[in-house]
Order: sequence, then structure tokens, then C-alpha cells
Amino acid sequence: VYVGVMKAVILSVNPAAQLVDLTHEVPPQDVRAGAFLLAQAMAWCPRGTVHLAVVDPGVGTARRAIAVESAGQFFVGPDNGLLSLAAKKISRAVILNIPRTASATFHGRDVFAPAAARLSLGEKLESLGRPAGRLLQLPKARGEIVWIDHFGNLITDLKTLKGELRAGDFRTRKLHRTYGEVGSGEPLALLGSHGFVEIAVRNGSAEKLLGISRGARVTTAR
Amino acid sequence: VYVGVMKAVILSVNPAAQLVDLTHEVPPQDVRAGAFLLAQAMAWCPRGTVHLAVVDPGVGTARRAIAVESAGQFFVGPDNGLLSLAAKKISRAVILNIPRTASATFHGRDVFAPAAARLSLGEKLESLGRPAGRLLQLPKARGEIVWIDHFGNLITDLKTLKGELRAGDFRTRKLHRTYGEVGSGEPLALLGSHGFVEIAVRNGSAEKLLGISRGARVTTAR
Amino acid sequence: VYVGVMKAVILSVNPAAQLVDLTHEVPPQDVRAGAFLLAQAMAWCPRGTVHLAVVDPGVGTARRAIAVESAGQFFVGPDNGLLSLAAKKISRAVILNIPRTASATFHGRDVFAPAAARLSLGEKLESLGRPAGRLLQLPKARGEIVWIDHFGNLITDLKTLKGELRAGDFRTRKLHRTYGEVGSGEPLALLGSHGFVEIAVRNGSAEKLLGISRGARVTTAR
Repeated sequence: VYVGVMKAVILSVNPAAQLVDLTHEVPPQDVRAGAFLLAQAMAWCPRGTVHLAVVDPGVGTARRAIAVESAGQFFVGPDNGLLSLAAKKISRAVILNIPRTASATFHGRDVFAPAAARLSLGEKLESLGRPAGRLLQLPKARGEIVWIDHFGNLITDLKTLKGELRAGDFRTRKLHRTYGEVGSGEPLALLGSHGFVEIAVRNGSAEKLLGISRGARVTTAR
Repeated sequence: VYVGVMKAVILSVNPAAQLVDLTHEVPPQDVRAGAFLLAQAMAWCPRGTVHLAVVDPGVGTARRAIAVESAGQFFVGPDNGLLSLAAKKISRAVILNIPRTASATFHGRDVFAPAAARLSLGEKLESLGRPAGRLLQLPKARGEIVWIDHFGNLITDLKTLKGELRAGDFRTRKLHRTYGEVGSGEPLALLGSHGFVEIAVRNGSAEKLLGISRGARVTTAR
Repeated sequence: VYVGVMKAVILSVNPAAQLVDLTHEVPPQDVRAGAFLLAQAMAWCPRGTVHLAVVDPGVGTARRAIAVESAGQFFVGPDNGLLSLAAKKISRAVILNIPRTASATFHGRDVFAPAAARLSLGEKLESLGRPAGRLLQLPKARGEIVWIDHFGNLITDLKTLKGELRAGDFRTRKLHRTYGEVGSGEPLALLGSHGFVEIAVRNGSAEKLLGISRGARVTTAR
């Protein structure tokens, strides 16, 4: 119901807003997975899109609430690294004003949704708060399973494969082009549609077959 | 696909309807959880909103189908208590006509969706059926876990805490302000953004850590 | 995030598109379940609806990408039988052009979403590709559990019951009218709102109580 309430708040401000759920598959509190998915999705969104992103374990603490403009799109959310992979070409950034009536546990409803709605109406970013300095960045990618999709495909943070890929007991030197190139039930690696190396099982779940979880290390060796 | 079909029915009647999914997280047949979430959500919805709510274990039996107006919003659904926490200031209420062609198992599609769509077009409530008397009310809240959210937070039906809160093995006398006030992995109670006492675990799931389920008793003692 | 990205692609082409999620409950790679649900849903959709359906285990292989018009609605997806139960009165069918830049693993985003968006703008089907011959059909229904819904109801591919229905250890000769006709926790069969015989448990899950899975055989005997 949290998402529905945020939409109700947005439509109260901008009844004509076109709302799209990019994803609700981010594991609870997993800021890196959220950042990864947002970066993936924004590449396909039209200019002027306002992204409302809430993976916010520090809600109500000193972490800042921000809104930024980057490459013609807007991003609203907590300053905890969540926006940092998507908003790579920031032209403007503000620290959002927190209304006195805001709850300490649901800034998605009380801070971010109203700000996103106002941006969708064409309000200026500057009207939402005061200029922000540098944003918090995520620690650099280090070779891991960043996300596991609905199919059980394991998405890594590697953009290419040099040498041998190793994750759990799985080993390969080959990047396939598509799932149909191996036998049914067999694992493979390929460069996924998101631009990252992905470990999959044809007609099956790599997560289950290989027993590899979110956050598992992925290494490459000669 | 049931929800998708209801939306298709609504858009067949009112192609310009703005549709929002408030929630699909209600456990099957859990009328009280549904009523709780609807009441929570409606507080954030704009005037004129039409709520279509279907948690309907008695579909096809003698339970009545109703539509009501309350505080400037409309509510359509079964008369089994589902609407009773949200529609607190009823100004008008009707028993919906059941079309002869309606199925006996999916009034969401055959009765409620068409009625909601007609209300969204501005049709009068009175045109949808005959006046209803008193609606069925839920038994009074009695101290329980009403709902467990996506994060594993345990939402109670208590609006405040006097004395010691007890749920399963968890005990506390303190209502925190936000999740970040305890150590990672530690449990706490706070007044949630929905206005009810909530038991949570910072960066974790209270449901899993405490082993408490939907419907568990919650008591308070001196 | 895959669905969100497809919506972003559609809205980039047709910003005014009205988007409805018919379902995301199809088990991975289960073409027959997808075909069944699409056929069920299309009966309730208004004329001119464009259906974008992606259950596509053969993506990037020789399987064809198609768009068809049937009974005043449009269907876009892989030619693997997914559309064959819904599109029963095909008036026109084309093999979609695959853009050179299309990925080999996500035709939903790179082929089907753009085609669906163009149809929603009123573009002619013929402009999207070259005429298709016969489409691939699914093997005939053979008496099985085609789909298990959110409530644990077991949906069969039988349209009526003659004699005794048998699925796992469950046996019945009676089709009930609605769930409330048996005691709480008891199993029953009825003709579901989708027009197929369904095995259910009142206030419970037939899947759990009977231990029957998707794909299980369903037979009838004198």
C-alpha cells in the first residue's frame, strides 16, 4: 500500500501525471541493487521523465533528501548513493526541504512524492530546496551479483569478460549471444540486454541450479 | 489476470479513467487486513476518488454488494466489513443491482468494476441500486498484528502505547521515532507513518527475527 | 525492471498510451499458461486494444516475431503459440522486422514494445513487417492444470464436466456454483468465471490442500 499511497499523493498534486512502475523487485534496503536497476531503466526513458526512487534505510536520520537533473531527466530520492549510478551528468542538484509535518519513517510519501509531482508539473528544481554540493557515491563495483531477476538470472556488475568467469562453482570463458545456444537446463554466461555479464540457465533458474545469491563474489582469472 | 480484467472492464466503460493499484498485498480472504489498508490509503486520496475493493470470500452468497459515498470519496465492494474502516462518514449508500449475466464467483469483474467505472464517469450513486440500511461492521480491534508489510514490519491496530507492549517474545516500553535509532538487526517499536504502532527490525525483518505472524495477539501491560 | 523498461519504450513512441498490466503471474517460460491467460483476458478488452505478450524462451533464435489483428484487437509477441488461443479470428498477420540494433535476449524491449506502440498510434499492421503464413499453434488441450491463481485455485483446460473429475487424489461428480456452497476448508469443483472447470478450497488453497501442481493431469471417467 506504500506505493499506492505515493501515487495518490502525486495525483493529488498533478492529476494528469502518467505513472509507470519501473520496478518493485529491489530487495529491502538494497541500495546498490536499486541504483543498478535505476541506471538500467533511465536509459530507456524519455527526456523530462521524473524518477522517484525510494530505497531508504536511513529515513528520518541525517541522510539528505535530494532532487537532481541529469541528462534531461529528474531524479528524486535519498542521498545514499541510490541515484548515483543513474544521474551521471548532473546539471543541477538541490537538498529538499523537509515539511514540518513529514513523518520520520516515510519520506517517500511526505517528501519525495510531493517533490516529484511538482517537478512533473514543470516547477523549477531550485524551488524545491537549496543547492546541494557533491552527492554521496556508492563504493566502486567490485565484481558481484548485483541483482537476480524474476527468471533467476544472475546479473553481475561486469561489462565484459576477459579470461575465465568464476561465480560459485560456475566457470566459463565464453560469452554466448542468446539463451538458446546451450541445451535446456544448462548454464551459460552472456552479455545481457542491460549491458552487463549475466549468468543464466536455459529454461531454468541459475539462482536455483547454481545456488548463488545476491551479493556473491564474481571474479575473472586468466 | 483478475485485476487486469477488472481494469479492462473499467476502461471499456470509461476509457479516460486514471487507474491506481492501491495494493495487492492483502492475504487471501483477509477482510480485516484489506479494511485496514483501505482506510490507511484513502486518507491520501483526492476528493472524488472511486475505490474498488475486492476481498470477497462470500462472493455469490447472500452477502450484499454495495457502493457508498463517504467524505467526498466513493467505495465499491462487498458488504462484509471491508469498506467499514475507510467509509466512516457515509452520506449515501446503495445495494448494487446484480446483472443477470453476472458470474457467481467474480463480482469484481461483473458487478464492482462496472459500478466503479460508472461512478468515475459522474453517474449518481442512486442510479446503481436501492438504498442500503446499516452496513456490516468489523468486530472491534482487539490488539493484534493486522498486517505485515513488504519489509517484514509488523503493523498493529494500536494507535498509541501505554505501558509495556508485548507481542510474542518481544517486549518494549518505548516508541522510537525512526528505524535508525537502534543498532542494525535490532528490534524496536515506533508509531508508523500509517498512525499505528509498528514493530520493526532495523535493516531486517521483524516477521523473521521475531517469528510473529499475521493475526498474532498484541497486548499492553502496566 | 524489464516491464518498466518496455513501458518506457512505449511511452517514448506514444506518450498518451493507456497502459494496463494484464498479468505478470505467468510462470517463467510457460507458454501455455500465458496463452491461456491472454485468451481469458482479451474477451474483456475493448476493440482496438493492443496486446503485448512476452513469454519467449526462444528469444534470439529462429522463432519468428509477429503481430496479428484478430476480432478487432491486436496481438504482438513471439510466434511460439503464445498468441494462438487469443487470436482465433486472424484477419491480418505480419512477421515483424527485427532492427539491427535489437539485442538477442530482450525482444520485448527492442522489437515487441516499439511495434505495439506504433499500432497504438494507429499505424497499419502491414507497415511493421511482411505477411506471415500460418502461425504456430499449441498442442491441443489434453486435460491438465493450466494455471494456478493467486488464491491457490487450480484452473483446468476443461470447459465442462461429464462424469467424474479426477486430479491427484481429488474426485468429484459435481460442479458447484460458488465457493460458499461447501464448508470452510473443503475442496470443490466449479465452472470458474473464466469459463473453465476450476478446483478450489473454500477459504483456503487447493494447491496446498491437495498438493497438486501446474501441469498435473486432469481426467474424467464415467
